[in-house]
Amino acid sequence: MIDLRSDTVTKPTAEMRQAMYDAEVGDDVYGEDPTVNRLEELAAALLGKEAALFVTSGTQGNQLAVLSQTAPGDEIILESDSHIFYYEGGAVSALAGVQTRTVQGNKGSISEELLQKAIRGNDIHFPDTSLVCYENTHNRAGGAAVPLENMKRIYKTAADAGIKVHLDGARLFNAAAALNCSIDELASWCDTVSVCLSKGLGSPAGSILAGSAEVITKARKWRKRLGGGMRQAGILAAPGILSLTKMTERLRTDHENAQFLAQGLRQIKGLKVINSVDTNIVLIDISAWETTNEAFIADLKSEGLLAVGFGENIIRFTTHYDVNRGDIEKAIAAVNKIKKIQMA
Amino acid sequence: MIDLRSDTVTKPTAEMRQAMYDAEVGDDVYGEDPTVNRLEELAAALLGKEAALFVTSGTQGNQLAVLSQTAPGDEIILESDSHIFYYEGGAVSALAGVQTRTVQGNKGSISEELLQKAIRGNDIHFPDTSLVCYENTHNRAGGAAVPLENMKRIYKTAADAGIKVHLDGARLFNAAAALNCSIDELASWCDTVSVCLSKGLGSPAGSILAGSAEVITKARKWRKRLGGGMRQAGILAAPGILSLTKMTERLRTDHENAQFLAQGLRQIKGLKVINSVDTNIVLIDISAWETTNEAFIADLKSEGLLAVGFGENIIRFTTHYDVNRGDIEKAIAAVNKIKKIQMA
Amino acid sequence: MIDLRSDTVTKPTAEMRQAMYDAEVGDDVYGEDPTVNRLEELAAALLGKEAALFVTSGTQGNQLAVLSQTAPGDEIILESDSHIFYYEGGAVSALAGVQTRTVQGNKGSISEELLQKAIRGNDIHFPDTSLVCYENTHNRAGGAAVPLENMKRIYKTAADAGIKVHLDGARLFNAAAALNCSIDELASWCDTVSVCLSKGLGSPAGSILAGSAEVITKARKWRKRLGGGMRQAGILAAPGILSLTKMTERLRTDHENAQFLAQGLRQIKGLKVINSVDTNIVLIDISAWETTNEAFIADLKSEGLLAVGFGENIIRFTTHYDVNRGDIEKAIAAVNKIKKIQMA
Amino acid sequence: MIDLRSDTVTKPTAEMRQAMYDAEVGDDVYGEDPTVNRLEELAAALLGKEAALFVTSGTQGNQLAVLSQTAPGDEIILESDSHIFYYEGGAVSALAGVQTRTVQGNKGSISEELLQKAIRGNDIHFPDTSLVCYENTHNRAGGAAVPLENMKRIYKTAADAGIKVHLDGARLFNAAAALNCSIDELASWCDTVSVCLSKGLGSPAGSILAGSAEVITKARKWRKRLGGGMRQAGILAAPGILSLTKMTERLRTDHENAQFLAQGLRQIKGLKVINSVDTNIVLIDISAWETTNEAFIADLKSEGLLAVGFGENIIRFTTHYDVNRGDIEKAIAAVNKIKKIQMA
Repeated sequence: MIDLRSDTVTKPTAEMRQAMYDAEVGDDVYGEDPTVNRLEELAAALLGKEAALFVTSGTQGNQLAVLSQTAPGDEIILESDSHIFYYEGGAVSALAGVQTRTVQGNKGSISEELLQKAIRGNDIHFPDTSLVCYENTHNRAGGAAVPLENMKRIYKTAADAGIKVHLDGARLFNAAAALNCSIDELASWCDTVSVCLSKGLGSPAGSILAGSAEVITKARKWRKRLGGGMRQAGILAAPGILSLTKMTERLRTDHENAQFLAQGLRQIKGLKVINSVDTNIVLIDISAWETTNEAFIADLKSEGLLAVGFGENIIRFTTHYDVNRGDIEKAIAAVNKIKKIQMA
Repeated sequence: MIDLRSDTVTKPTAEMRQAMYDAEVGDDVYGEDPTVNRLEELAAALLGKEAALFVTSGTQGNQLAVLSQTAPGDEIILESDSHIFYYEGGAVSALAGVQTRTVQGNKGSISEELLQKAIRGNDIHFPDTSLVCYENTHNRAGGAAVPLENMKRIYKTAADAGIKVHLDGARLFNAAAALNCSIDELASWCDTVSVCLSKGLGSPAGSILAGSAEVITKARKWRKRLGGGMRQAGILAAPGILSLTKMTERLRTDHENAQFLAQGLRQIKGLKVINSVDTNIVLIDISAWETTNEAFIADLKSEGLLAVGFGENIIRFTTHYDVNRGDIEKAIAAVNKIKKIQMA
Repeated sequence: MIDLRSDTVTKPTAEMRQAMYDAEVGDDVYGEDPTVNRLEELAAALLGKEAALFVTSGTQGNQLAVLSQTAPGDEIILESDSHIFYYEGGAVSALAGVQTRTVQGNKGSISEELLQKAIRGNDIHFPDTSLVCYENTHNRAGGAAVPLENMKRIYKTAADAGIKVHLDGARLFNAAAALNCSIDELASWCDTVSVCLSKGLGSPAGSILAGSAEVITKARKWRKRLGGGMRQAGILAAPGILSLTKMTERLRTDHENAQFLAQGLRQIKGLKVINSVDTNIVLIDISAWETTNEAFIADLKSEGLLAVGFGENIIRFTTHYDVNRGDIEKAIAAVNKIKKIQMA
Repeated sequence: MIDLRSDTVTKPTAEMRQAMYDAEVGDDVYGEDPTVNRLEELAAALLGKEAALFVTSGTQGNQLAVLSQTAPGDEIILESDSHIFYYEGGAVSALAGVQTRTVQGNKGSISEELLQKAIRGNDIHFPDTSLVCYENTHNRAGGAAVPLENMKRIYKTAADAGIKVHLDGARLFNAAAALNCSIDELASWCDTVSVCLSKGLGSPAGSILAGSAEVITKARKWRKRLGGGMRQAGILAAPGILSLTKMTERLRTDHENAQFLAQGLRQIKGLKVINSVDTNIVLIDISAWETTNEAFIADLKSEGLLAVGFGENIIRFTTHYDVNRGDIEKAIAAVNKIKKIQMA
């Protein structure tokens, strides 16, 4: 099976397994796990922030960012299709008691004008706007890389209004590769940033939340409340260190594979590639074919290919460490074969 | 001063004051206030619901509807400019822990298509959609009366998906007058409805929340938690009864006054009436004049007229019991006078 | 019927009704209700605090105090039988997200030692202690007046640990009468204080929350979220002013009536008065009689007397404005009559 | 260093490291991690429950139990020194919005009488009691094993009142060893149970929550909201399987070591062993010595021994997999040596 459903399916590399095997560990609740400490220091340095915290998932990193920088009755501004709003079970309202105000972005970018309008003034009827969240790369926009210029504008618009900014950077290293920027340059346009060690970077689990020492101290306490504090967490921190040191450069290969896949799919009649394929995600519109998402995905599966539906008549393919150029060629061939059966 | 800022400024009528003076009262926490009981029975009957609850404000009625029909981690669907989303301090998220998902309406109406899209399916990443809220008349849409046909469609679309519907009917009697419908016909297209006794109906304070007996029992307990349980509440229930029995028909006069005002304002060069003036609200766009909201409101004030800003270059006038046709004539004259000064 | 169930059953006096009839009102959401403004200024001055807020109930005042002085994940310390813990539907946890830590008091007093032990230190496993709440007079301790000395100690112990103090003074004027203190002297031993205008002070509804200007500003916004903001609230503020200016001194009469009642009951064989009858509450233990709370209360009712159960074999009688010495004499006679029937 | 601070400091065994190295993994968010699935099935079977969920910590298991079986405004009953109340940052109130009502236990047991008194009746002023939580073994009671008889009584008393029961069984296998019971017999006296794979069972991290399929489905969604959903979680599930299959019997050795330690400490003048040493925890009172917790712990450290303070003048020692009989002998010798220095 060639699994293009998500980069979350990547399995730890042999080197990661060895690192877990060898990991020096301690009790992280006492702050004594040397591998966790090393990962957190490394991540803070890479991202150019005072402090970093190892968390069990991207969702947890995002939730801690909100819990540590808002109060109940506040409003936070999010892009309409952002992960935090779309895929985290309404947790920001359930846990942090904040109201979500969404603004429609364009390939993940949020216009300064819409952002300005969404910020509340001072009125007894209004919630206080305390946080703006944006996402780079933007998953539902097909892995779009939000340009540095827009990141700056979001940050400055918010900062001018005294509002904090959280960057959901689950795939921020993909953005860095696509934009040819250093990761700390990207991370400089926010107060807090979360970055996933799994997904394209290959770790079995875990993410990083980075920000000021003060906010990370608060986040650490909230992590305890969410049950995210683990004992010998160094087992997971060990592959995390490899993710940050050895896996970031190779994301370019995933992006090239996605480009290659997109090119192949564009040549298949009736299929439309609808995203700009900035990174490792390809979205195709299959509405010209007489099929449904379910049927198409089943056809792919019978050809040894896994993909996911991503809205009406839209299919998402994601490249990652566990698929190579040969797999992509097979994937294109498989779709071609389905087409022929369809057209027959 | 002719106060056209809001219908909330209406003062209790002489008859209401007498009713408060004479009100038979008891301890409502024991369920023994006969006037409150009478009001709640009357309201339930009028609105065609099993039970009704007297609450201290429209906001409280709305919040209780959400608290009694959702659970934390749910998502509720709201029109983007609805009172609950816009003017209640983010309370639905702070108190009930629900995430707000907004859909852009048109004069308060919500299209079936957008509503359908906003309803979540079953997925571990998604919050559960448990409530749709809509508003009739719709304040920020300039007092627009949402047509019966749209009310039905919202209710049926939600009901088909197993989702409850709350109708924020702060000014539902205005809608009934505008649409020439009975109030219970309107209230039949929701599970719970809140109606204000103040505003156009003149009571000094208080609202009604109506719905099934089961939901109202839950709401009563939540009212206690919010501190909305009062002792001799019959003092406020007494004018409330008058609001429901003697003040609803006269709303037509407010609507005629608003029409008359709109007509007068349309004849003033550069002013644009931008809403459909279905009920007692007139919105004008003053951007053709070289002024600001603040300056314009100050000018009006110096002419004895009070109004409020309602967005960039938009001014809201609201008619109500305490202004009569003569006041409206004076209001038009005042704006004309300002215009002349401006143009000079 | 002589109603000794609670002082909450008092009905507004004729003077209060007249005051409501005559009340000068405005829209309090705009801050324009002159009667509300007058009440809030008066209350702040009386209680010796920077600012005061009119709220719809004692519960609302307490909840706002907690919402305005804590954050979710904090812990608050309460006496085990306090109203906030016992009778407010778990609202402090539901609304403010704070954990309740109770300490067993003695006649409402909280020992410094227990309080010290209940305050948390700094540890990632612990909630932060941010508020201590105490109650004077203490309802479930039979209206016990907490001595000034204990109030000071609670306040100082908390203040030394950097913790705020809220005084639930629903019946603080009863405490002032019992302790022969001025109300501002009592209110000086807390950061915020809530005082009921209903109960012994006779208003139909409403309470005051007082504290620093900063806290009251926050509380005002939370009041809006809870739906406690009312329009022409002056209707209820008018009797509130009378409660504060004309009804506080007469509480001594209620206390004398309670003493008189207690004396009468003590002479009835088998009944034990179990509280110290500091104020207007008398608790009797009926366990020596072969009866139940329900049967005893039904017997009283058939003799024209209303009382309430207050725990196993305990009955509470409360004196107030609407019962006079003659009523108390009848009440004693009624209990004597029941005794004879019982004993027969 | 001989580390007797906690059994949480245990490091994964060589076999566990190998299991992690070899673990077959998949994406657990898709339900495709075979090792996680195997662990969850194994745990459910062992505990005699319909379903089980792998979570990142004991705190997370407890929080999910509360989130899945209560609603905001409910009250839960807890032993005064329970982990959930004492050590989880007030999370039950912050996350689930429930009020905590504590009852004082005796060696972790909760008397039926106190439990009965703590259950609320039906009254609009009261929160609804929806969950009783108890802990076995009970950490702050010195690892006391709550007898089966008390477990039954707690469960039946709650069940008779229609209230669910959660068992915090972080060290339930220690209880099973101490009570000579099977784990499923213990787990039968609750609706949900959480069990730690770390601590005495040696896994680097992770716990199990087990209960009915319905509750576990809810818990799985809440786990996602808390960010506890991980991708290739099989890495941690693999040692978890070893914890459940190969590590439970050896807890008896820890208990024998604790007994041996207690015996040694009892012979040292002035030291009092204050707990019953049912399992792997020894508590000593050092108040007869002229020292403080801090000084005593520092002295121990200089002798190569780590322990923790556990209240005023109380020190806790915990035995576990990484200390053997020889270490215990050294520990006793170290305390003796400190004594001599002290006495000199």
